Amino acid sequence: MTITVFGFTRSPFSHTIYYVLKELGLSYEIVQPNSYEDIKTPEYLATKHPFGKNPYLDDGDFHIYETRAIARYLVNKYQGTKNSTILIPTDVQKAALVEQFISVEISYYTEPLFKMVRQYALKKHKGIEPDLKIINEAREEFEKTLDVYEKLLEGKDYLTGEFSLADLFHVSVTSFTLSFGEEELMNKRPNVSRWWKNISERESWKNIVAEYKSENTQ
Amino acid sequence: MTITVFGFTRSPFSHTIYYVLKELGLSYEIVQPNSYEDIKTPEYLATKHPFGKNPYLDDGDFHIYETRAIARYLVNKYQGTKNSTILIPTDVQKAALVEQFISVEISYYTEPLFKMVRQYALKKHKGIEPDLKIINEAREEFEKTLDVYEKLLEGKDYLTGEFSLADLFHVSVTSFTLSFGEEELMNKRPNVSRWWKNISERESWKNIVAEYKSENTQ
Repeated sequence: MTITVFGFTRSPFSHTIYYVLKELGLSYEIVQPNSYEDIKTPEYLATKHPFGKNPYLDDGDFHIYETRAIARYLVNKYQGTKNSTILIPTDVQKAALVEQFISVEISYYTEPLFKMVRQYALKKHKGIEPDLKIINEAREEFEKTLDVYEKLLEGKDYLTGEFSLADLFHVSVTSFTLSFGEEELMNKRPNVSRWWKNISERESWKNIVAEYKSENTQ
Repeated sequence: MTITVFGFTRSPFSHTIYYVLKELGLSYEIVQPNSYEDIKTPEYLATKHPFGKNPYLDDGDFHIYETRAIARYLVNKYQGTKNSTILIPTDVQKAALVEQFISVEISYYTEPLFKMVRQYALKKHKGIEPDLKIINEAREEFEKTLDVYEKLLEGKDYLTGEFSLADLFHVSVTSFTLSFGEEELMNKRPNVSRWWKNISERESWKNIVAEYKSENTQ
């Protein structure tokens, strides 16, 4: 069966899915929308993603949308079939801790980054000056989260000790945010800095950065 | 082993965990903080929840925090051991669709409700007048989500066809929001209204409402 990822190759959500696919050793095809309008048509809303978002994934005739759900589906179906990489352990308690840190990422980590990115994107795509007050408040909120991560990561290479889907989910949104002149964010705390290096310098991610660099730096 | 849920019994997050526990037929004990300050102490942050939130769960000596992670842990460990209720199917594709709708809930459904609730809570706990502009904008955003749900629920009793953890995750936050004079929100669309009845009139949830009613209506 062919796995197809439909979505803009510049999207950080698409990158997360590519990252999961590469970690699991899966090959895939990419189909891009022609334009933003393509994902808002009645046909798209009715059959592809009812909220008009991308990416979605087709695995043969199985259709699924929402990045984190797609990631879990790929892990549940394919983990261990092409290589020995484990993104969600089979042990119930270990899996629970991966889920705990996925929830931490959603609840405290990604939201302030998106607040910053939305402002930077205004400038990039519409020429509107970003609201520095919003950016600074979001950065402050994010730094508080990193202060907690610094403690959580004491003596650990990864959030649960071993690389997992929880770590992976942090990479794309962080990388995207850093690209807007925020490179120093992850360098100020030794444990966070070590962790960031561990999760962003994996071969799979470096390949994605290389392949989609032109979109990343547009 | 004893399952202990630590958290305020008035918290909608605690209610979600009770709901999962009851659906799975599990017994549990509740321990409440004495005050809000209890969940901000250095000891609590270091050993219970690093972000100073509640609830958390102890299952014997296994400790876990973050509501959705706790829920998944309980399902993975105990589903099928006490009764036949299925919250996450074992079939990979069916499980993926449950995850898809959990992600939909997080991405498009719960956030506007929290925006409303935060304003209503200001009034309730601090006597500060809620910002009606924020409430109205959030309600409008939520109604747009419900318009999509109305289509998704056409001909279906539940989001994936059968009751699942995805449906369950909607109940507590919705119920909490409706209690602030927003009772009409779920009555305007026939499919949404039928679904809401299906997921909020289950025996387990009715028991929770009865048991914690005094806290709910404080």
